[in-house]
Amino acid sequence: MSDKYASLGVSSSKEAVHRATRNNSKGLFPYAFCKIDSYDYSPKWLNNIAKLFGHRQVGISHADGAGTKTSLAYIYWKETGDMSVWRGVVQDSIAMNIDDVACVGGLTGRMFLTSSIDRNSHRIPDEVIAELINGENIFLDMLRAYEIDITGQSGETADVSDLVRTVTVNNSLFCQMPYKNVIDNANIKPGNFIVGLSSDGCALYESKYNGGMGSNGLTLGRHGVFAPEYRKKYPESFESLIDAGSNGVQSYTGTKKLDEKVNAWGVSYGEMVLSPTRTYAPVIKKYHDLHLDREISGMVHCSGGGQTKVLNYLSNPMTVTKYDMFDIPQLFNIIQKESGQPWEHMYKTFNMGHRMEIYTPSKDAAEKMIDVSKSFGVEAKIIGCVERGAKRLLIKSPHGRFEYSR
Amino acid sequence: MSDKYASLGVSSSKEAVHRATRNNSKGLFPYAFCKIDSYDYSPKWLNNIAKLFGHRQVGISHADGAGTKTSLAYIYWKETGDMSVWRGVVQDSIAMNIDDVACVGGLTGRMFLTSSIDRNSHRIPDEVIAELINGENIFLDMLRAYEIDITGQSGETADVSDLVRTVTVNNSLFCQMPYKNVIDNANIKPGNFIVGLSSDGCALYESKYNGGMGSNGLTLGRHGVFAPEYRKKYPESFESLIDAGSNGVQSYTGTKKLDEKVNAWGVSYGEMVLSPTRTYAPVIKKYHDLHLDREISGMVHCSGGGQTKVLNYLSNPMTVTKYDMFDIPQLFNIIQKESGQPWEHMYKTFNMGHRMEIYTPSKDAAEKMIDVSKSFGVEAKIIGCVERGAKRLLIKSPHGRFEYSR
Repeated sequence: MSDKYASLGVSSSKEAVHRATRNNSKGLFPYAFCKIDSYDYSPKWLNNIAKLFGHRQVGISHADGAGTKTSLAYIYWKETGDMSVWRGVVQDSIAMNIDDVACVGGLTGRMFLTSSIDRNSHRIPDEVIAELINGENIFLDMLRAYEIDITGQSGETADVSDLVRTVTVNNSLFCQMPYKNVIDNANIKPGNFIVGLSSDGCALYESKYNGGMGSNGLTLGRHGVFAPEYRKKYPESFESLIDAGSNGVQSYTGTKKLDEKVNAWGVSYGEMVLSPTRTYAPVIKKYHDLHLDREISGMVHCSGGGQTKVLNYLSNPMTVTKYDMFDIPQLFNIIQKESGQPWEHMYKTFNMGHRMEIYTPSKDAAEKMIDVSKSFGVEAKIIGCVERGAKRLLIKSPHGRFEYSR
Repeated sequence: MSDKYASLGVSSSKEAVHRATRNNSKGLFPYAFCKIDSYDYSPKWLNNIAKLFGHRQVGISHADGAGTKTSLAYIYWKETGDMSVWRGVVQDSIAMNIDDVACVGGLTGRMFLTSSIDRNSHRIPDEVIAELINGENIFLDMLRAYEIDITGQSGETADVSDLVRTVTVNNSLFCQMPYKNVIDNANIKPGNFIVGLSSDGCALYESKYNGGMGSNGLTLGRHGVFAPEYRKKYPESFESLIDAGSNGVQSYTGTKKLDEKVNAWGVSYGEMVLSPTRTYAPVIKKYHDLHLDREISGMVHCSGGGQTKVLNYLSNPMTVTKYDMFDIPQLFNIIQKESGQPWEHMYKTFNMGHRMEIYTPSKDAAEKMIDVSKSFGVEAKIIGCVERGAKRLLIKSPHGRFEYSR
């Protein structure tokens, strides 16, 4: 079966971009989850004092966004009139940034956030922009309540209807943090345990049930799950060229309506796919506070590339085996069933149950991390391990054993 | 005559956004050109040493982008096959950021750049992304040759064809700089001279003639100047709703073709409107090196809002008079003639000849700044002054005397 995702115009592996950036600097830690640059205090004598006392600093510049989740938010808002969906979209974009930067230890530093909102003012009124700005403030207040040092409220809103069909939400995060706290995935080694932090459920710092979606795979999630009626009703919500390829119609090929209830608790399909991306920042901040980070070899945010993401960060040949993942959240079963995407591809596109994984050589530390995570209402467990062997990833799933080597 | 710009879906004054951010923090210097936050070195004792010796720091988070210039770059590239146009688009986006941050003295600090590229992969192939990345490297290398401390090569490229018709290019800039070097527009006062730095011509650090466009007013510039044939040929280059309003067809209402020559030197209309946004950073860096910044009361980057931008930064009632601006560059005469936009609106939308203005109480310093600017091949002169009076802006132009109060 052909890869439906490619015919939707999304390259989940981003090979082209990797080619273009081949000659770019990889920073101080080439295998770290984010690019890390040196960061000197000025003037020089002050920097020398800082270094002398072990306070050398590094800087991380990062960018990410809500992706096509805004397209679904748009039709959900049009259908239901529910403005609050836009607050979730901001959380999506910010969480994608902060959870990436958390993977290198960034929560021990200071973070500055900017936002870039590009909108089509013919479709997106000022009230939506106001909700996006409110959403940022609410989410940052929550993070700060967990003693995460983040400054926001800077950014640009551009009226670019000739470029954007509805609205795009992107953020950038600059982080300055101590060199000594850097988590470098080059330390991932055979013998490591892998702690997975669940992507669904309801964390103490979340206000309602989270389906576990994150901000990746949304193009497939939207078109795979939702019904053809939206194709006609909201032509502004997708690129019509996706229906013109040799694979035939690819837009809105599912059977579900946005407001159709998934289960007896009253959660709709729309709400489930639109669940704001969970941040793991409060949990990981606690790991730092408890010095559990001393036992962390590496961290991987399973965003673009899903469960295969770790393959980008292995510094030597070794085999990552995920033998005891969480039960697949209902959401991903629905997406697979509706879209017909092969299970092997599902693991390359979605988080499938945990969006954050922590690599540690210590079983004791792993257990402490699991307990801390559970104390925040986030399920956690050892989902796999790293072994000697060729560079590859093995996933043992209820739907078969899948092997990935890139 | 109605405001053509509003019917194109662009609010040049961004009132809605200002409303939504009304309760947001204005930072340490509410009248400064960019939001400035405190920035403490860590640990605290080190920060105390820094402050004690006059090295207190501030942080600036900023975001801006190329706007709809990418839409014109797209059709220019499709028509001519000229890939290099994409390098200019990156310069547009970066210059919009760095010239904003330069207005608060940011060039005396250290800057970290990130990029967010959202593309429609059905329209924009990998080669374009590669040119965008190359363009960033070339432009940053040029800036570094003038001893501007900027680190780049971080960012995100997202395949979001359901959101973006062609491609959007946005950047964010984080700057850490000394508190003592902050340029605060609250210091703009009656008695100030205004030095304007020309937006057109060919600076020593530019490789060809610059029409003076910048990255604002592109929606009007494109639709006002270029011919209806592009409407049919490139429906993906604009929002068709702009033609459905009560004002009738608004897209591509001009008479010019992209490759039509403007003058005997062989510059085409397409090239002219697509001239990459000139950065003034090398000139302003030199002002700092020569300590001319001690005589700077304020700086205004005439971006969104054009020549009226300064009205956002006056801390008290005073009258800004621009009585001797540069001759209007050919480009803006063309845009006015083709679009029929009233001259009064032209000054609110475009830079009309200078995109950077420096406020200084010293005529001597003004003359030195003019000399420095000319030494870089950038024309400069005193274009106006600040006087006692009501909060307003007077522009004495060859097309009449215009008064603006917001």
